[in-house]
Amino acid sequence: MTRVTVWNEFRQERSDPVVGAIYPDGIHSAVADGLREAGFEVRTATLDEPEHGLSEEVLAATDVLTWWGHVAHDEVADDIVERVHRRVLDGMGLVVQHSGHFSKIFQRLMGTTCNLTWREAGERERLWVVDRAHPIAEGLGESFVIEQEEMYGEPFDIPAPDRLVLIGWFQGGEVFRSGCCYQRGRGRIFYFQPGHETHPIYFHSDVRRVIANAVRWAAEPMGAALAFGNRKVPPEAG
Amino acid sequence: MTRVTVWNEFRQERSDPVVGAIYPDGIHSAVADGLREAGFEVRTATLDEPEHGLSEEVLAATDVLTWWGHVAHDEVADDIVERVHRRVLDGMGLVVQHSGHFSKIFQRLMGTTCNLTWREAGERERLWVVDRAHPIAEGLGESFVIEQEEMYGEPFDIPAPDRLVLIGWFQGGEVFRSGCCYQRGRGRIFYFQPGHETHPIYFHSDVRRVIANAVRWAAEPMGAALAFGNRKVPPEAG
Amino acid sequence: MTRVTVWNEFRQERSDPVVGAIYPDGIHSAVADGLREAGFEVRTATLDEPEHGLSEEVLAATDVLTWWGHVAHDEVADDIVERVHRRVLDGMGLVVQHSGHFSKIFQRLMGTTCNLTWREAGERERLWVVDRAHPIAEGLGESFVIEQEEMYGEPFDIPAPDRLVLIGWFQGGEVFRSGCCYQRGRGRIFYFQPGHETHPIYFHSDVRRVIANAVRWAAEPMGAALAFGNRKVPPEAG
Amino acid sequence: MTRVTVWNEFRQERSDPVVGAIYPDGIHSAVADGLREAGFEVRTATLDEPEHGLSEEVLAATDVLTWWGHVAHDEVADDIVERVHRRVLDGMGLVVQHSGHFSKIFQRLMGTTCNLTWREAGERERLWVVDRAHPIAEGLGESFVIEQEEMYGEPFDIPAPDRLVLIGWFQGGEVFRSGCCYQRGRGRIFYFQPGHETHPIYFHSDVRRVIANAVRWAAEPMGAALAFGNRKVPPEAG
Repeated sequence: MTRVTVWNEFRQERSDPVVGAIYPDGIHSAVADGLREAGFEVRTATLDEPEHGLSEEVLAATDVLTWWGHVAHDEVADDIVERVHRRVLDGMGLVVQHSGHFSKIFQRLMGTTCNLTWREAGERERLWVVDRAHPIAEGLGESFVIEQEEMYGEPFDIPAPDRLVLIGWFQGGEVFRSGCCYQRGRGRIFYFQPGHETHPIYFHSDVRRVIANAVRWAAEPMGAALAFGNRKVPPEAG
Repeated sequence: MTRVTVWNEFRQERSDPVVGAIYPDGIHSAVADGLREAGFEVRTATLDEPEHGLSEEVLAATDVLTWWGHVAHDEVADDIVERVHRRVLDGMGLVVQHSGHFSKIFQRLMGTTCNLTWREAGERERLWVVDRAHPIAEGLGESFVIEQEEMYGEPFDIPAPDRLVLIGWFQGGEVFRSGCCYQRGRGRIFYFQPGHETHPIYFHSDVRRVIANAVRWAAEPMGAALAFGNRKVPPEAG
Repeated sequence: MTRVTVWNEFRQERSDPVVGAIYPDGIHSAVADGLREAGFEVRTATLDEPEHGLSEEVLAATDVLTWWGHVAHDEVADDIVERVHRRVLDGMGLVVQHSGHFSKIFQRLMGTTCNLTWREAGERERLWVVDRAHPIAEGLGESFVIEQEEMYGEPFDIPAPDRLVLIGWFQGGEVFRSGCCYQRGRGRIFYFQPGHETHPIYFHSDVRRVIANAVRWAAEPMGAALAFGNRKVPPEAG
Repeated sequence: MTRVTVWNEFRQERSDPVVGAIYPDGIHSAVADGLREAGFEVRTATLDEPEHGLSEEVLAATDVLTWWGHVAHDEVADDIVERVHRRVLDGMGLVVQHSGHFSKIFQRLMGTTCNLTWREAGERERLWVVDRAHPIAEGLGESFVIEQEEMYGEPFDIPAPDRLVLIGWFQGGEVFRSGCCYQRGRGRIFYFQPGHETHPIYFHSDVRRVIANAVRWAAEPMGAALAFGNRKVPPEAG
């Protein structure tokens, strides 16, 4: 069974009553509940645990990691970022959520700033499936709506995705590449835009469906480990 | 100097007074005027000319072909489509406009239906640049507006573009991959969505800019001709 | 269970004693045997059957079609090519083998000539996995060898693959993009270069493994059918 | 005129007589000479200069940076790597040469280990053009030979290139993705494999041609600077 670790910064839920009212047990609990319903084996980890809850043992026992962070990206220790980075390249899947676009681990994997435009106005968003045949779109209609969401808009400073699955339409006039697939080393990465902390987005059925699909996709077999280095004998040595 | 042939079906301008009022000399004249202003050497060709105006001689003297068609795609003769197809693979650039998504030549090059959703309601469209570093985006702001346009929406049944430059936002709630780059053989192809015949879109300065940029991009050197077939002597024969 | 139809031209096995000695029951039998061993439900179809063995009923009951053709591409009826094309866009997987690069169906899907260079000299080929994390590479080592194969070399006139999984190295000095993945419509397509008729390539264990992996990959769920056309009511109509 | 800064580690030329005999004035001098012949305005910079020769002023006056490093990647200061990284994302082109695959700047931009296999045996390499229509291939034949080169082989742990222009064939049986294009932010990056220090590769006319083409390509206009951050007023605010 696919083993998922749901990581969350877990700060605003405790400091901001608006967020705390929506997610009294933390965003990670809502994400984890959705994934458990979808049949995954789920644990959670948060910033203020030792090693941010991401020990070597935890990562070794994780097939897919989901990541939510916002106000404390800088507090994630560099050596933990390195550890997660190595695990992704070695085949662990990674689902980066919403404001996680600015996390150290996503920037590290993308090689770009991952900057974007944004606006907090509780706008209506409609997400369109532009790659219907991708496993992450399974079970979705042609589009789905989030009644209130923070606007995330282009430009979005990422490498062109290997596959672009979702494009977001915002009431205020913007569009956004909201569902982006990448392969890095043996690991699969999915960036998924919805998830602002002041709206109950992780209870939304289609958002949960996308996250579950993304976990399933990112957990697929990643091939044998790669052997690098000096290959002294030519394979075609006479 | 880059030599452009602007091709137009040129039917609705003569049969539909609304269209005729906007484009009394045909859509091709408006497109050609924009390209002449941008410094290109331009000729036009239309469906009802012999060989649709696309003789071997014309194509041989064409660096980039632009294509507008709508109600008479089926009347374009298959052998002319084959001729254009060969020329594109041999290095001629092609800029496919608006309803040209359903032209035989675009379907032939894409290998898919190129189908989409649409709505004629004169909606406001905002086109966002999502690949600011692409030459086709040169001189554009982060987005530009077309006050009234036919809605073209996802799903759009095309191969994933080699580069996606523009995404359209429509007032009614849709998004569309509005500026798509492809390489096929030695030829470069750009699909550009705006251009409904009942709105004066080919007089719009940013639309003209995109078309001129696309022509410039599609006309770039395409490398030496390729030699295929039986290579009897191995290059590494001892 | 995934239902595979193995299509073969089945001419040279009957006309050329060298080929007939290797594949007395036809190339399709060898390919089908390999796929049955891998656990698929397999039927075969050949050129000289009515409708080339590819009736609407057969295609409707086919999840993945494999295609081998060489000397009689022109004898494949255009309406059957159209039928296969529609089925692929509607979600049927397609595995194109070796000289099938010049089949009408592959050219139709690619939009290019699919031309290449070649040499019949029974050269040694080594196929390298360049995308180890792709499901089609599952179970392969870092490379595998075919003792004698027709050389297929670059240039290969195809659209840049969505994913390039294998590159072939040939004794005579050439390289070739030997394993190429494409998505077209809802259908997945894999081109796999090995398979010259004068060598017993379809009995090779790693060749069989790649074909089985490709069938498994191409058979994956392809999402809901797409609805195109006039969407009269804007989704965001107030 | 395009301004190029040729960066070189410049250590082995001074410590290893074999290397010093080939490049008495350093690899950077040979690379710079080739680029001057091609008409560029060239300066050089090396590791042991203050700030590695890459001050803010130098980078601000550089359109394209070329990078050769091998034994001292770790000595490149992290803050200089950050500075170069920012400049690339802001539009400066970068041509990474040979063992520069393991440089901090290339790893930073790619987000992967950039590891590979290698063998020092002075093998013959033949580089094949697989994307003849790309500007970096301009003027090349279908392949070109380097008589003696270090073998670099797959697997090569990089993101799938945006465009793959060259594939290397090695005498000992390997292949390698030898010419790879990337876009990151507003900057264009080209990785080019040839260039082992014990062979006179930077005097080779086709190697020089590729580097000059790559510089020309990487120097192309990169679009307007991107504006990120809070966009308080919706563009479609009524």
